[in-house]
Amino acid sequence: MTPILDTICSPADVKRLTIPELTQLAGEIREELITALAVTGGHLGPNLGVVELTIAMHYVFDTPKDHFLFDVSHQAYVHKLLTGRRDRFSTIRTAGGLNGFMLRTESEHDCYGAGHAGTALSAALGIAAARDKLGGKEHVVALAGDGAFTCGITFEALNNIASHAKRLIIVLNDNKWSIDKNVGAIANYFNKIVTTPQYHRLYERAAKLVEKVGGKSAAHVARKAEEAAKSMLWPSVIFEEFGLKYYGPTDGHDIASLIRTFQFLKTLDRPVILHVITQKGRGFEPAEEKTKKFHGLGPYNPETGETKPLGQRTYSEVFADTLAKLASSNDRLVAITAAMPNGTALDRFRVVHPDKYYDVGIAEEHAVLFAAGMATKGLKPFVAIYSTFLQRSFDQIVHDVCLQNLPVVFCMDRGGLSGDDGPTHHGLFDISYLRGIPNIVHMNPKDEDELADMLHTATLYDGPVAVRYPRGIGPGVAVKEQPIPIPIGKAELLEDPGNARVAIFTLGAMLPVAREIAETLASEGVSAAIINARFAKPLDSEMIAHYARSADVLLTLEDHALAGGFGSAVLEELNSQDLSTPVCRIGWPDQFIEHGKPEGLREKYGLTAEAALAHIRQHLGITVG
Amino acid sequence: MTPILDTICSPADVKRLTIPELTQLAGEIREELITALAVTGGHLGPNLGVVELTIAMHYVFDTPKDHFLFDVSHQAYVHKLLTGRRDRFSTIRTAGGLNGFMLRTESEHDCYGAGHAGTALSAALGIAAARDKLGGKEHVVALAGDGAFTCGITFEALNNIASHAKRLIIVLNDNKWSIDKNVGAIANYFNKIVTTPQYHRLYERAAKLVEKVGGKSAAHVARKAEEAAKSMLWPSVIFEEFGLKYYGPTDGHDIASLIRTFQFLKTLDRPVILHVITQKGRGFEPAEEKTKKFHGLGPYNPETGETKPLGQRTYSEVFADTLAKLASSNDRLVAITAAMPNGTALDRFRVVHPDKYYDVGIAEEHAVLFAAGMATKGLKPFVAIYSTFLQRSFDQIVHDVCLQNLPVVFCMDRGGLSGDDGPTHHGLFDISYLRGIPNIVHMNPKDEDELADMLHTATLYDGPVAVRYPRGIGPGVAVKEQPIPIPIGKAELLEDPGNARVAIFTLGAMLPVAREIAETLASEGVSAAIINARFAKPLDSEMIAHYARSADVLLTLEDHALAGGFGSAVLEELNSQDLSTPVCRIGWPDQFIEHGKPEGLREKYGLTAEAALAHIRQHLGITVG
Repeated sequence: MTPILDTICSPADVKRLTIPELTQLAGEIREELITALAVTGGHLGPNLGVVELTIAMHYVFDTPKDHFLFDVSHQAYVHKLLTGRRDRFSTIRTAGGLNGFMLRTESEHDCYGAGHAGTALSAALGIAAARDKLGGKEHVVALAGDGAFTCGITFEALNNIASHAKRLIIVLNDNKWSIDKNVGAIANYFNKIVTTPQYHRLYERAAKLVEKVGGKSAAHVARKAEEAAKSMLWPSVIFEEFGLKYYGPTDGHDIASLIRTFQFLKTLDRPVILHVITQKGRGFEPAEEKTKKFHGLGPYNPETGETKPLGQRTYSEVFADTLAKLASSNDRLVAITAAMPNGTALDRFRVVHPDKYYDVGIAEEHAVLFAAGMATKGLKPFVAIYSTFLQRSFDQIVHDVCLQNLPVVFCMDRGGLSGDDGPTHHGLFDISYLRGIPNIVHMNPKDEDELADMLHTATLYDGPVAVRYPRGIGPGVAVKEQPIPIPIGKAELLEDPGNARVAIFTLGAMLPVAREIAETLASEGVSAAIINARFAKPLDSEMIAHYARSADVLLTLEDHALAGGFGSAVLEELNSQDLSTPVCRIGWPDQFIEHGKPEGLREKYGLTAEAALAHIRQHLGITVG
Repeated sequence: MTPILDTICSPADVKRLTIPELTQLAGEIREELITALAVTGGHLGPNLGVVELTIAMHYVFDTPKDHFLFDVSHQAYVHKLLTGRRDRFSTIRTAGGLNGFMLRTESEHDCYGAGHAGTALSAALGIAAARDKLGGKEHVVALAGDGAFTCGITFEALNNIASHAKRLIIVLNDNKWSIDKNVGAIANYFNKIVTTPQYHRLYERAAKLVEKVGGKSAAHVARKAEEAAKSMLWPSVIFEEFGLKYYGPTDGHDIASLIRTFQFLKTLDRPVILHVITQKGRGFEPAEEKTKKFHGLGPYNPETGETKPLGQRTYSEVFADTLAKLASSNDRLVAITAAMPNGTALDRFRVVHPDKYYDVGIAEEHAVLFAAGMATKGLKPFVAIYSTFLQRSFDQIVHDVCLQNLPVVFCMDRGGLSGDDGPTHHGLFDISYLRGIPNIVHMNPKDEDELADMLHTATLYDGPVAVRYPRGIGPGVAVKEQPIPIPIGKAELLEDPGNARVAIFTLGAMLPVAREIAETLASEGVSAAIINARFAKPLDSEMIAHYARSADVLLTLEDHALAGGFGSAVLEELNSQDLSTPVCRIGWPDQFIEHGKPEGLREKYGLTAEAALAHIRQHLGITVG
């Protein structure tokens, strides 16, 4: 039963409610979140934590005139529920439904999209600077978790706020977690603020003042009071140095107090930061207890929070278990994560090798440089970062790792279509952005066992290596006891029935599609060879030349964008060898791919056996009756 | 006359000198720098600023056992002079000579190379963590300018220092400049530290203590003294929050004091930061006065500091002047630089439009996000960043600008081979890393006038645009009064004598090579068309198809890596259209290119008319007698 939520068609409806009604609305939103996400899956925990915060923001400010930016924006579900998207909320993260993140094309209330961490303050500063330049009066509010403050971009934004914006409201949503527990000095710093008693007293006093005086004149009084108490503001000094007036810490679940605070902050004519303490998973016991699990997850039982076991290990788990095993006999091996021990499964590695495990926070650039530094001392660092997030380390990969030819291994989880999370999370560009860099080796396993072999190979190779594997579970191939090394740049011939007219070069997870194609062709009397390409760089020149000379057509299959991808590399190879065999390339088109189930999207964009067969038949001049 | 410097073959020789001799050595090094760089050009100002600092470091520590990291490492010339490379110093930045930056392959004393800013602390932390893990006792010293502290990666490193290294010595070389004057809150913060009088008194007192007690036991006394004076340490609080013990500010030109300080810091068992005040250009009057000019420059008169005028505007200057002109009639246009108003020539724009100019510091990621935010408000931001430095914004280009299809314009200076600066500065990857991204337009002007047209075109286009232009001067084509828009994705046919057997698709600055090829072919009786491709994305499909159908061979010319580059895109285009015309691709091979004069390097790697002609003749089956 959600009687109040049922009446909310836009933020205007929120503004009409009384405090008790808003409190009830918060409860109803929690109910809605827990019930709806039980079916679709999604970022339950983070959204349960910001229910009151989001309600208070919409009560006080006016989107779309005012601008809300949510860092990562996985915590914008409540915002979506309050801005006219409640009727479609059950479609979230499903094909054709709402996106799981902010999306400019989805609503005028989504002024800025995201999916990667640490962008909100910078973009908000741009919006605020533009407003100031254009003479606008609207408010810009950026909400960022404490995890965002481990990210360098947030710091770059802080460094520029005082010079580039007259006003800007930053909300620090402090729940001690990004996905895993936050690490580093800044996390400790926030904790110190929260646990400094005189600070609390000061804030309470200021809050009372605001309450008593109310409205605009409160600004003056509060400022005076705070200035007088400057010496007590020690913990907020970092923010003050950045020219941000600091307020907080305050209870992020007290709607009335949040509303008063925002009403006060609205009157200030300068950049401010409000430090809000929230509880991740608030109001759903399983999520309060298992914070990591409920950060983002698939469907679950709305009563118990139970999820269905997968039945087999994911690629991430195979990666982490293999790495742990390799590390047991290799003193030089270390593993680095950028705040994602859970997503990369390195938490499994951490259990076995706590002394070889490093979590650097949401700091992908530093992660790679840290690894590069370690590699110069003879260590063998494995940096596990999702394909799409590794984009952030591009310069460090070029300038530090590859230019110096250092033996750093990039373990790119979520290589290929990521599915439900959508375009911000698909890993569809890592071949095109990496294969232009000299010295790097780019590997793609066809199954779990080959992933283990490739990780083993990477330990033996004295140079930069990227290993790319898909999200979720693979074909379920058992990992053999002892991994075997794979010769760098050698493809694997899987099938050649002889006199192959078609040579299928399949990369990574596309193998089942290759098999389907070969079977169908066989049934049509066309012989096809299947080559597991393994490497997007370096390519197996000999194998390619062999089939370019013997077959009528080459087919490349990749779970990657066609522009600059694996098929493109094959074209270059043929060109270098003056070979002109027709090539049929199957991969993602040159556009951003929306969210949805991988099967559906592959169907839609022609990454299927059927679509490939149509191309091949055309090349071979075959008509199917 | 450099009698002492003449005796220095390795750091061991530095350690044998007395303080007066070291002071004389400093003078001799300045003489050497001023004289040698007058011929080769180079980063004179930064190196004149760190003479005493580098001498003191080598006096106290022992490279290569101990590790020195220099941020950007353009200020490592003194280090090179002291580590056995004095005899080759006159070859610096010339073909086959010393590199202008730290280079692992050049000396065992160069433990970590660089060229981009903000990497030293992160890499040093990796080295220190590896040392701790391996149980080593060596010292790691990272020297970074205050400019590095505007860069997010430095902050990411700071956030992790306390948890990941037992010991680490960071030297903050504070000269108020990176290349231009530093901007933002952190620059103000450093200034506040330096100008706080009680801070100076405190430091003087501590220094005296150290001097009096000396050696290891000084550590204990100094610690006690500082703890007692905690309340006076206010300005250092940010560093203390990061778990770094702060020392300074101290005079970076007082060798004796620097040596005492390093000897003391060496005894500490924790991460520390030493804040050193230096003067850029110290000891050479023209460089002290014109800090920006002498940051990095070509040959000059060693007496007066005068440089030869170029005689014509550089591409950077044409860019900035054109942008200034466009901004005069466009209220929405703004320009953003990441600490390089001089290098990008935006200082010329700033003079005309101070209200439309934004310098965000060495913060390329933030620069792009800031632009993206502005674009959502209807502004038209032009972000001017060198091709190689824009690598740092790759994720923001994908995730924020292109995914949201925002009209941000990337002005990529130093696109193509950068010459003397070497592999860290060549802009040879921007086509391969950008063309895989949906929505982006990638333009390349053939001359100055077309650059102006392209900038004008970018103002009219409602989506992301990258414009790439070379370092230095162009062919000297006059820029017409009124720029004209160029249709997106349309190549320009420059020459077609009819019945062309060869179609030359030339990109950007390669046009003179194309003309030379066409002329030679004509003299051999072979007709060649010249097409100014203009766009690396989107390609002119029609033009390509036309010549693929009519010519015997296509030739692509690009000042870019072949892997994933423009020629590769042409191959994809032909493949998509089922065309199999032979293509001859000329560009840089798949390896990092060393420093040197562009002409020499083009010769060496086959980016000449001659090399292209050899390929073409082979394709056409022509034998030249």
